[in-house]
Amino acid sequence: MSFEITATDGEARAGVLRTSHGDVPTPAFMPVGTKGTVKGLDPARLRELGTTILLGNTYHLHFRPGAELIEELGGLHGFMGWDGPILSDSGGFQVFSLRDTITAVDEDGVTFRSIYDGQPARFTPELAADVQRRLGSDVAMCLDVCPPADVSREELELATETTTRWAERQLAAPRADGQLLFGVAQGGTDPELRRRSIEELAALGFDGHALGGLSVGEERGAMLETVSWSAPLLPADRPRYFMGIGDPAGILEVVARGIDMFDCVLPTRLGRTGSALTWEGRLNLKNARFARDPQPLEGDCPCSACSRFSRAYLRHLVNQQELLGLILLSEHNVRFLLDLTAGARAAIERGELAAYKAAALDRLEQAAAAPGQEVSRG
Amino acid sequence: MSFEITATDGEARAGVLRTSHGDVPTPAFMPVGTKGTVKGLDPARLRELGTTILLGNTYHLHFRPGAELIEELGGLHGFMGWDGPILSDSGGFQVFSLRDTITAVDEDGVTFRSIYDGQPARFTPELAADVQRRLGSDVAMCLDVCPPADVSREELELATETTTRWAERQLAAPRADGQLLFGVAQGGTDPELRRRSIEELAALGFDGHALGGLSVGEERGAMLETVSWSAPLLPADRPRYFMGIGDPAGILEVVARGIDMFDCVLPTRLGRTGSALTWEGRLNLKNARFARDPQPLEGDCPCSACSRFSRAYLRHLVNQQELLGLILLSEHNVRFLLDLTAGARAAIERGELAAYKAAALDRLEQAAAAPGQEVSRG
Repeated sequence: MSFEITATDGEARAGVLRTSHGDVPTPAFMPVGTKGTVKGLDPARLRELGTTILLGNTYHLHFRPGAELIEELGGLHGFMGWDGPILSDSGGFQVFSLRDTITAVDEDGVTFRSIYDGQPARFTPELAADVQRRLGSDVAMCLDVCPPADVSREELELATETTTRWAERQLAAPRADGQLLFGVAQGGTDPELRRRSIEELAALGFDGHALGGLSVGEERGAMLETVSWSAPLLPADRPRYFMGIGDPAGILEVVARGIDMFDCVLPTRLGRTGSALTWEGRLNLKNARFARDPQPLEGDCPCSACSRFSRAYLRHLVNQQELLGLILLSEHNVRFLLDLTAGARAAIERGELAAYKAAALDRLEQAAAAPGQEVSRG
Repeated sequence: MSFEITATDGEARAGVLRTSHGDVPTPAFMPVGTKGTVKGLDPARLRELGTTILLGNTYHLHFRPGAELIEELGGLHGFMGWDGPILSDSGGFQVFSLRDTITAVDEDGVTFRSIYDGQPARFTPELAADVQRRLGSDVAMCLDVCPPADVSREELELATETTTRWAERQLAAPRADGQLLFGVAQGGTDPELRRRSIEELAALGFDGHALGGLSVGEERGAMLETVSWSAPLLPADRPRYFMGIGDPAGILEVVARGIDMFDCVLPTRLGRTGSALTWEGRLNLKNARFARDPQPLEGDCPCSACSRFSRAYLRHLVNQQELLGLILLSEHNVRFLLDLTAGARAAIERGELAAYKAAALDRLEQAAAAPGQEVSRG
């Protein structure tokens, strides 16, 4: 088996995902290498920060520079200079979140216009399999139909059914050597459709499962509630992946509900806009209160930003739109989430996740209530 | 003495500049940390690349974030996290190159509008001294009057005379502990004025001297000719600094003429625009011929870009305007010039600079003549 659970604590699990490029301790936060690079961060530095697995985006890599080119240059590992595990998404989430670009969804696939050049393009399960085979990712994802939260039940049902049929087709398509394949369950927040989707996919025998069709516009409470009752429906002996969550509180909430893997562009996006994730809250370095602040972002963080620079300097870099500022903040934010996740894993192993989560949420909420903090979620 | 010459070869010299923050082997290329950061490059990485001294810009740091703030945060070394030697310029070159912003030049100083907010500002020798004292640079520069190449002889003479009087005033102003002060000779390409400027400054007893008032619009041939006859006029036992040269051929030309130090934004500026300095010429990574090129930029370069990534990947990053591409190319370009300079130093020690220079210029010219090369100078 490619996945082993080493400890449980309530619904939460600690485990190890074994891949062709190494083991991934879970729960695992996956920094997002959208276009074959985690924005601004050298893969060598990502490794030093404690990154154990990266995500690559099939949509973007298919169009630029193309999977054939990446295959020719050693697959995504060789191309981007990262020899650790990589999970590739299927491109489905991108296509369906760029709704205005979709021209047709039919039984065979989805037709849309590429955001790169506006030209017609088409994704099918077979294409998603082929692109990911060429990328040579350690974990490939099934192409799913991912409707928005406000879709009708009829459309949601069709999306769910189509997703299962596409999963069957992708399961039958060629894969890279040793490549794992995860199914993606749909069904929105609808209990019956979600259960049906999970059961149908579980019967197909995937190496892991994602809860898709969430974070698509529904309320956060409804999203977390759906995770609460649907995660336990997923096969317990396979890794569970929640796509697209990366705020500190959100990570703790899904880990407590039995999720093993998650990804988000939040840390690098925040970094590029001059904000830092800290235990004092989300700090906007443009704020004048940091102008003469000689402290590091966080006193006990070993990242480059915290170990060698002051908030005042980071603020100066951000205000002057200096590349180094964006890089340092991105690095810190990735490290913050990796650290938070590693802490959650250790707490699960001690059987103390509830206390770890409560203390962390308490700190984050107190920080959010302090004056001058940014409280919006990313 | 703060400067020791260890070898000579024709007019060229190899030496060591001793500063409060360490020794600088010369000839030395100084990467430019315009606003307290060498654009895109972590100081720790700069050190690994072989950087021995950085340049900081008084003009920019005076306005953003201000010298008082930098002083409070440990001087420029502490502020920017670089514990090696730093040379600060005087702000004069920036002010005089932004000619349209100057409202008055008088005996006391120069009045102009800040490029940051358009507000009136004034630089005097005393202010240049005070800002650099607060920055705590290892080498401070005298504020000079730096006219463009097409100025009348009367104006050039006045600029030269004023520069000497300003140098006297700055020499009398307080400095940081152990801070060296270099004079800046003016006189354009006029033999008599240049000689007079050098002699007047030499008599004042500076720790080193720069040839100012060049690279201000004159022909490159005239500039190099001026260096040829004016460098030998500078005190032989003090370091000689040529401000603002950084193309590979230019570095070799001024080193051969007896220059010990030089700086340029070229390597990082080229990096940010997607070009790489190599022995195959200046490579524009946007060029389609690199699309499938699995080779590194340069086979024997130990920088991050060359040791871990292909030209095809760098091209992808540049085309997608990914931060990592700009960083990697900047790093490579800085390393290329540091390496070229270190090679020149070793050649001087062996008494073989002429051969080293001829071979290097030959390679660079052959590369420039090859199809698809960029030949413009930066």
